Amino acid sequence: MTSNSFGTYFRITTWGESHGPAIGVVIDGCPAGIPIDEANIQQALSKRAPGRNNHTSPRKESDQMQILSGVFEGKSTGAPISIMIPNKDASSSHYEPIKHLIRPGHANYTYLKKYGCFDYRGGGRASARETACRVAAAAIAEELLKAEGITSSAFLYRITGCNKKPFDLHTPHLWKTISGSPVFCPDSKTEENIIAAITKAKKTGDSLGGIVVFQATGLPVGLGDPVYHKLEAKLAQAMLSIPASKGFSIGDGFDAADMKGSEHNDALSENPDNPFLSNHAGGTLGGISSGQMLWGRVAFKPTSSIKQSQQTITTDGQSAEFKLPEGSRHDPCVAIRAVPVVKAMLSLTLADLVLANRLSTISKP
Amino acid sequence: MTSNSFGTYFRITTWGESHGPAIGVVIDGCPAGIPIDEANIQQALSKRAPGRNNHTSPRKESDQMQILSGVFEGKSTGAPISIMIPNKDASSSHYEPIKHLIRPGHANYTYLKKYGCFDYRGGGRASARETACRVAAAAIAEELLKAEGITSSAFLYRITGCNKKPFDLHTPHLWKTISGSPVFCPDSKTEENIIAAITKAKKTGDSLGGIVVFQATGLPVGLGDPVYHKLEAKLAQAMLSIPASKGFSIGDGFDAADMKGSEHNDALSENPDNPFLSNHAGGTLGGISSGQMLWGRVAFKPTSSIKQSQQTITTDGQSAEFKLPEGSRHDPCVAIRAVPVVKAMLSLTLADLVLANRLSTISKP
Amino acid sequence: MTSNSFGTYFRITTWGESHGPAIGVVIDGCPAGIPIDEANIQQALSKRAPGRNNHTSPRKESDQMQILSGVFEGKSTGAPISIMIPNKDASSSHYEPIKHLIRPGHANYTYLKKYGCFDYRGGGRASARETACRVAAAAIAEELLKAEGITSSAFLYRITGCNKKPFDLHTPHLWKTISGSPVFCPDSKTEENIIAAITKAKKTGDSLGGIVVFQATGLPVGLGDPVYHKLEAKLAQAMLSIPASKGFSIGDGFDAADMKGSEHNDALSENPDNPFLSNHAGGTLGGISSGQMLWGRVAFKPTSSIKQSQQTITTDGQSAEFKLPEGSRHDPCVAIRAVPVVKAMLSLTLADLVLANRLSTISKP
Amino acid sequence: MTSNSFGTYFRITTWGESHGPAIGVVIDGCPAGIPIDEANIQQALSKRAPGRNNHTSPRKESDQMQILSGVFEGKSTGAPISIMIPNKDASSSHYEPIKHLIRPGHANYTYLKKYGCFDYRGGGRASARETACRVAAAAIAEELLKAEGITSSAFLYRITGCNKKPFDLHTPHLWKTISGSPVFCPDSKTEENIIAAITKAKKTGDSLGGIVVFQATGLPVGLGDPVYHKLEAKLAQAMLSIPASKGFSIGDGFDAADMKGSEHNDALSENPDNPFLSNHAGGTLGGISSGQMLWGRVAFKPTSSIKQSQQTITTDGQSAEFKLPEGSRHDPCVAIRAVPVVKAMLSLTLADLVLANRLSTISKP
Repeated sequence: MTSNSFGTYFRITTWGESHGPAIGVVIDGCPAGIPIDEANIQQALSKRAPGRNNHTSPRKESDQMQILSGVFEGKSTGAPISIMIPNKDASSSHYEPIKHLIRPGHANYTYLKKYGCFDYRGGGRASARETACRVAAAAIAEELLKAEGITSSAFLYRITGCNKKPFDLHTPHLWKTISGSPVFCPDSKTEENIIAAITKAKKTGDSLGGIVVFQATGLPVGLGDPVYHKLEAKLAQAMLSIPASKGFSIGDGFDAADMKGSEHNDALSENPDNPFLSNHAGGTLGGISSGQMLWGRVAFKPTSSIKQSQQTITTDGQSAEFKLPEGSRHDPCVAIRAVPVVKAMLSLTLADLVLANRLSTISKP
Repeated sequence: MTSNSFGTYFRITTWGESHGPAIGVVIDGCPAGIPIDEANIQQALSKRAPGRNNHTSPRKESDQMQILSGVFEGKSTGAPISIMIPNKDASSSHYEPIKHLIRPGHANYTYLKKYGCFDYRGGGRASARETACRVAAAAIAEELLKAEGITSSAFLYRITGCNKKPFDLHTPHLWKTISGSPVFCPDSKTEENIIAAITKAKKTGDSLGGIVVFQATGLPVGLGDPVYHKLEAKLAQAMLSIPASKGFSIGDGFDAADMKGSEHNDALSENPDNPFLSNHAGGTLGGISSGQMLWGRVAFKPTSSIKQSQQTITTDGQSAEFKLPEGSRHDPCVAIRAVPVVKAMLSLTLADLVLANRLSTISKP
Repeated sequence: MTSNSFGTYFRITTWGESHGPAIGVVIDGCPAGIPIDEANIQQALSKRAPGRNNHTSPRKESDQMQILSGVFEGKSTGAPISIMIPNKDASSSHYEPIKHLIRPGHANYTYLKKYGCFDYRGGGRASARETACRVAAAAIAEELLKAEGITSSAFLYRITGCNKKPFDLHTPHLWKTISGSPVFCPDSKTEENIIAAITKAKKTGDSLGGIVVFQATGLPVGLGDPVYHKLEAKLAQAMLSIPASKGFSIGDGFDAADMKGSEHNDALSENPDNPFLSNHAGGTLGGISSGQMLWGRVAFKPTSSIKQSQQTITTDGQSAEFKLPEGSRHDPCVAIRAVPVVKAMLSLTLADLVLANRLSTISKP
Repeated sequence: MTSNSFGTYFRITTWGESHGPAIGVVIDGCPAGIPIDEANIQQALSKRAPGRNNHTSPRKESDQMQILSGVFEGKSTGAPISIMIPNKDASSSHYEPIKHLIRPGHANYTYLKKYGCFDYRGGGRASARETACRVAAAAIAEELLKAEGITSSAFLYRITGCNKKPFDLHTPHLWKTISGSPVFCPDSKTEENIIAAITKAKKTGDSLGGIVVFQATGLPVGLGDPVYHKLEAKLAQAMLSIPASKGFSIGDGFDAADMKGSEHNDALSENPDNPFLSNHAGGTLGGISSGQMLWGRVAFKPTSSIKQSQQTITTDGQSAEFKLPEGSRHDPCVAIRAVPVVKAMLSLTLADLVLANRLSTISKP
């Protein structure tokens, strides 16, 4: 089915369940000669790891990864790169009391019906734990992007009930700064509001949604291939593959659906570096990068696991009450930990299209 | 590159430019034994065709298609189905005066830089004309879906400045009704407002954006494959591959990013037909169809071609004014003609996932 | 299923049946800027066309192709190239008397059982007519190869009962010379024997098998990707996809299975142009081109259609006699017309791997 | 590049070098519900493992595999199955004296030129060690095949200088019997000759080639898809991807190239179980399984590593002598250990096509 693979040229295949011995990723298609720094990958993983601070899930995972192949003397060899991350803190005993219940908002209903089996211990492949593999692979993709002068970033833009006064999306926000924020938000006032809202949600046992913005700079003109591998089409698939994501937009996105052509069209002037006078399009025209900053939004629903009582059914179809057991972990807003994952999917998509672009014309290489 | 193909199992490959002799599509992977009715395909094409009424582009294309292979005695044979649609009304002389100008909001800037060549006669592969091929292929996909009891639909939900009082999205709207509306809108009050707004935009030479809603009913539990071929991920790619689309969402989508978990989670009760008590999720859980109605939104920007003067540059980078030549065709709101294309991409995605689902378990077949 | 596509990067999709209105091919992934000369393609087709001389099938097909997309001002644009070849001399009335019979050695038995339908008019997709599409696409692939300094060739090496004294396979034989021979054989003595054997087979209504040799020169070191896209693995798939092919070998091939390592290993010396002192390997080491001439063999069975009486069954499973109707066309040795097809599959495989090789290292482009 | 993946539906991706910490395979596309018995996989691996007896390489690898994902309570879950095999006996110090030499008949010349880096410690991805991953994955594929009634087998047919009196290939030889032979040969006289020849080759420090035959029984009519995914085309790719393989044939193969149509065509009679009166075709017609036994041959060159002195060059292009260091391992005939690998590739190909066949017709569910 290949449904566990992403990318056509820079291709990752992830494997593993949240409660098995390990998770991992195989990268096939990484060119030879790319510097691979294990510390970099480990640092990227630490940004996504649960238990990073008290605004996210308290599950403790060191996410200590091992590279098992494809690297020799600090560089990629062209062979597949296999990375494994053992699961350490996978306590499945918590799930015992709720093993016969359909969890509202979760995938266990659909997995049970589709596959006829039911790994009650945790989310299995639907668990956000799988995204650690994306982050590890993206750290390598980013080395490829760096060689092309491309940087990728993402940040938390708003969450449920916050951000009355939205901040500027047209200015690039550097990952270096963002990753210093406990909630990955570059705007200090918004950050403060977000932390207050999360603190409150934790008290009521409820959860919040949020919007993550992605940005990439340094793109050449030419990434993306008409017509089904358009830059925004591949990005949209990438982002909607992230657990809990519910929407994607590029540039002005849904706002553009309420604008006029005379407002939305980006005019051009004599400037060889960047002829565009605005960037409503979000850095892409006809599915191909225009050389402007690439930017867009990803919407995340509120975390499905809440501590309030919910009406549900058993796996046999009988009415039941669903309530998270005492001591269960609870991540009040998945949008926060989604930020490094959005950045990872952005990097993986761009690395794939950078390679695709080598194939486009006769003059290359 | 395979970037002109969509679908893994029910796979289409489209070809052709708006100003060449013809456009076409090859469907590889259509199972044998599916009834193929040429009149059906032709009728589907007529819904998308330009010149259908005076709210869309006046280009006259009969879009008379021919099936060249893969059908014998009214049924698919399992061999690739090749469909060709000759171009009739491709007058490229209109483009002569603007052949050295970058068109704001268009792909000719990025195509020129990427491919080093420049087909000034029209949009080439970036032209919306390519979408006729999707509609033709989707008419066949819909025969496959019909055998599974699945129906797909789409309608115009709102356009720039209209739809102050949004209508209900949770009720299925049948294509039969929608396709009777000149602007593909099932709500008569909204339809009226939309027609008024378009009439006004035509007068001012400006253009409008819009939001198209898609809906599918009759889905089994089980369409979509974790983790990168999630139903919503494949749909997102499908929709963002449509010219002028700028955003995609599933279920409550971006609204979910401003909700609480206790509001958004769909509770379940004892009902074997459909245990869910609401459908905020949009018919998918963990990337797999839940058996509820599938629904979501696609945002379209205002048409890039407007009749007002715009600041631009020549292909040599010199400042210039861009103004559509007199007599040029002008489609004031691409979102209207996008409706059958959204429906087509929905059908193509579902047909692909229906086939994918045959592979999932040992018991099938 | 994508089973009608070949190639990962330079990807062709063929369509059409021998008795439908047309056959055709879509090439997706041809880089922009490649010179496309229609006369070249037409000339390549004429080499494969039936009725070329009286040693092959008398079906008369002008094989007049049309390019429908992807070319502008004599060069590829990067968009898919669609080529159509109308069927002219498709007389299906000959097949009427044998429409209920399983044809020994043919695919109609397996097609009927697999697809449940039966296009009795001819071979459908199993017809050798499909290979015209490969030849047309390969003519374009060869323009890409030419830019890299690569040439491809093929010739008839031997047929049933001939070639007691095999001629040299280590010397490159140019296509220019070969294509002048009525049976595509560069050795005049062998050519003579082949023509005599064919003349005799025609008289007895029987058919002959044969071996075609392929050769390519000018390859860089580096084509082919470990481990499943090895040069010889992709070539093997390519060659075994040709109708009537039954075997493939690279370099010494099956002879190597009867040699010692001390005989078979190609030693190396100080010669920067070509360090190898022999070429038992056939131009590949570890699945990657070594820079030597690439060479190997493809075995073809005798044509299944013979004019002698054969024991068979009806489509209902009843015993019957199979005898080709009077006036039926008869191609006594498919290996002859297979020669340009072997060359085409060689070119298509190499073009694909030339593009693949652009992805391998960080320094490219 | 995906060049480390095999299969479209039952898809494996292998990773790892012979001298890294581990090798492994990820299977994506295994249907849910297939029984997975670790002991079975381990037993299959033991057949391929080096050091099995003194006719093959003395490298000692227990090949103790671990399943890391995709299995729950003894059955596949539909999620990717990740298998890891740690490397134990990877002593790279032996390679120190020859680290600057091109090894005649090996891939290190082409890897160095292609990737610009050089893992002198062993064959890297070119090592036959990678094939352990194929065998492990095939053990799972065989569970899928078993549910369809399909069995696969392979045996050593002949080696250099042996087998004057070839034994019957039309009778199925069961793996159970074959795997009891130290050289995987079902014919006791041939086995004796083979062992004698190998003993002699070891003494002279030379190596031998060989031919492996594969057989599969219980196939339905219908496996294989026209035209590029023909059963024999996919098999040919599968077999030529095995290290040291140089040729592939199906049924009579190269012998068919010296036969007449009246000899080669398999006639049919009234027998609903198997209407064919002979099996020259090898169990396939038009690329689709005919329901007969599938059979063919794979040719292997003599092992490249020999203990005799050979003329070569250094990685800098200087003349040098190549001689395996004292104490180096030496496998006098790779064709022996290739037998379980041929069987594995057969099983993987068939499992892939069994899944593909679920997509072919409308009547399958």
